[in-house]
Amino acid sequence: MVAELISVGTEILLGNIVNTNAAYLSEKCASFGLSLYNQQVVGDNEDRLADALKVAIERSDIVILSGGLGPTQDDLTKEVTAKVMGCELIEDAHSKDHIISMLKSFALKENITENNWKQAFVPKGAIIMENHNGTAPGIIIEKDGKSIILLPGPPNEMIPMFEESVTVYLNKLQPEILYSMMVKICGVGESKVETLVLDLINGQTNPTIATYAKTGEAHIRITAKAKNLGSAKKMVEPIVETLKDRFKDNIYSTNENEELEDVVVKELINKKLQVVTVESCTGGLLAGRLINVSGVSQVLKQGFITYANESKMKLVNVNESTLKQFGAVSKEVAIEMAKGGIIEADADIGIAITGIAGPNAEEDKPVGLVYIACCYKDNVVVKEYNFNGNRQKVRDQSVTKALDLLRRCLK
Amino acid sequence: MVAELISVGTEILLGNIVNTNAAYLSEKCASFGLSLYNQQVVGDNEDRLADALKVAIERSDIVILSGGLGPTQDDLTKEVTAKVMGCELIEDAHSKDHIISMLKSFALKENITENNWKQAFVPKGAIIMENHNGTAPGIIIEKDGKSIILLPGPPNEMIPMFEESVTVYLNKLQPEILYSMMVKICGVGESKVETLVLDLINGQTNPTIATYAKTGEAHIRITAKAKNLGSAKKMVEPIVETLKDRFKDNIYSTNENEELEDVVVKELINKKLQVVTVESCTGGLLAGRLINVSGVSQVLKQGFITYANESKMKLVNVNESTLKQFGAVSKEVAIEMAKGGIIEADADIGIAITGIAGPNAEEDKPVGLVYIACCYKDNVVVKEYNFNGNRQKVRDQSVTKALDLLRRCLK
Repeated sequence: MVAELISVGTEILLGNIVNTNAAYLSEKCASFGLSLYNQQVVGDNEDRLADALKVAIERSDIVILSGGLGPTQDDLTKEVTAKVMGCELIEDAHSKDHIISMLKSFALKENITENNWKQAFVPKGAIIMENHNGTAPGIIIEKDGKSIILLPGPPNEMIPMFEESVTVYLNKLQPEILYSMMVKICGVGESKVETLVLDLINGQTNPTIATYAKTGEAHIRITAKAKNLGSAKKMVEPIVETLKDRFKDNIYSTNENEELEDVVVKELINKKLQVVTVESCTGGLLAGRLINVSGVSQVLKQGFITYANESKMKLVNVNESTLKQFGAVSKEVAIEMAKGGIIEADADIGIAITGIAGPNAEEDKPVGLVYIACCYKDNVVVKEYNFNGNRQKVRDQSVTKALDLLRRCLK
Repeated sequence: MVAELISVGTEILLGNIVNTNAAYLSEKCASFGLSLYNQQVVGDNEDRLADALKVAIERSDIVILSGGLGPTQDDLTKEVTAKVMGCELIEDAHSKDHIISMLKSFALKENITENNWKQAFVPKGAIIMENHNGTAPGIIIEKDGKSIILLPGPPNEMIPMFEESVTVYLNKLQPEILYSMMVKICGVGESKVETLVLDLINGQTNPTIATYAKTGEAHIRITAKAKNLGSAKKMVEPIVETLKDRFKDNIYSTNENEELEDVVVKELINKKLQVVTVESCTGGLLAGRLINVSGVSQVLKQGFITYANESKMKLVNVNESTLKQFGAVSKEVAIEMAKGGIIEADADIGIAITGIAGPNAEEDKPVGLVYIACCYKDNVVVKEYNFNGNRQKVRDQSVTKALDLLRRCLK
């Protein structure tokens, strides 16, 4: 089956935002075995959206639109789609109740305005998908063997809706079972990963093998098409085994939905260990990633953000002489931060990050130089990194590497 | 003039990479006053690329293609474009010399293969743009009043070529200037913002007014087209003044590149004030946002992540009795966290967040309930919020509201 994406939003056409939704949806289409030959982007304009949709329906079986479901006049996706498909819009009582409860809870002082009710109207006969993170319901219209899927634009609404509802729908549409596993790797560069699996990729037909680069990580997806789940699994598993042989402990998970922080927190809970974070240049982002995981309260009680030298001394007892001799961005200070954190928090493991996120070099050291220390029992591991990219990218890579170092130290 | 983008590459259709080129080129088109109504993405496929190009030429004056200029058989963009435009491909001596010198310098170990010469062929009569970062020359074909611009796909080749050569070309083409300002609002919901500017939007032609929703924020862009910058500014500024009248101190910036955290840090620096963050459910994300701003080290020395009750007591001296009486998620604890943070960090302002990010309710309180306290001198402000959405969304909204509360308390 052929799928096509239409991203709707003037902000994409103006370059205000990067179209990450299209990348997410493309990857998902591939994982469902759908052939994707075209993506389109149009603004919130009735004629152009209608034209884009007509072209897409003509050449594709499934058209996924994202964006333009908001409450404002600009937002036309639902109205235009209903018109093109010849569907009447009717008020959906359940969607209206949902809008009321959503707006009541997050905008106490704000009046519900007339245009909010626009979101409760849905095409007659459509499948409605509830939006747990916003007021715009998702919509699926089926007609003449085609499926038109309407999703909200904000990724934090679109992605959960896709995972929860669209996935179920697409699974039903597919005559064959698709089964995929994701091998998640941290500690080997993307191009090296690609080189190491080139022989497998080149020979691929079914299962298919594809690599994806994430910040500080590389993911490999293996997807098989088969008549039933058992057969599909039998096709995927030997390849996963081959990858395990090749990448060994650089693989942190083979579960699509498991992030690096999930693995770390699970391991801490299993081992009944308390962790403490001590962060300089990442300023709380590492703790923020760990606290993503529900249940983390068992293993992370507190964290320190020691941005200034004085706070490194005051909060986690880094020695003034160490700071003077080696500078704040040094192996020595990273180790003292981790050790001091353990003592102050009465924790079992301390993880500390100190580095230069930029934009300016400091202490005659270059932007991107980062030290990460992990102390666990008598073990002290400290790593030096030289990251590329801007302030944000240096900090994101630092957090990923810190999580990976924690993971390895816990083994 | 109307521009259109065609991104060529199977890796975009598979979701292997995010199409950042399209965002870059879109923003550039807007800055040149070009109207961009459509973006397309197609794979390296002759028929589909030809179809996409024909549609684009029909409806647009300038078509910018990126990708598919490489040396391999897959790369078809130049060949297909020449065919569609009815141009003959001829060998360009200068491009051939450039290829030889590039390959000699960056691929010492790699032999020059026959298909490398493919890149030296250019459409007869085309404008050739030199590629200082790769072997594929850029190409501009002019025919029947249309301009077709071919750029290499890798951003580190495409962007320098755009800045150096395409910019010069577009400046010559463009009769009008485009100028825009962004009014950034926090504290009024998106749909309410829309309602409050509907009269302005409805009457829009030039300048245009568009609203954008961000997490916890609403942005309004006003864009004018005119013969020169002065005239364009004169068209935009009265509307910005009208918006200032309507939204007053809910507007935190009119600078496109200024984020909420930038405004807060600038104000702290101006007032020479030290801030301290004390975070429970957001676990470091607020400090992480502040530390996004370079120069923040002058005003933020440290922060506390007090996830557990015991750490609220130990690190920032929250009273055990307050915790027992009101629970960790309460106005009273939020205030004690902020006050305790100020004392411990010897800071001027304390901002504290305590709440229930989910997935489970706690203390008989619902998911999404968040208290944010800000203490500055004798002033104590504490706000109760009931956020919607998943764990991540509750935390993101909390951070935005905390930054906004800080901003307001600093006034």
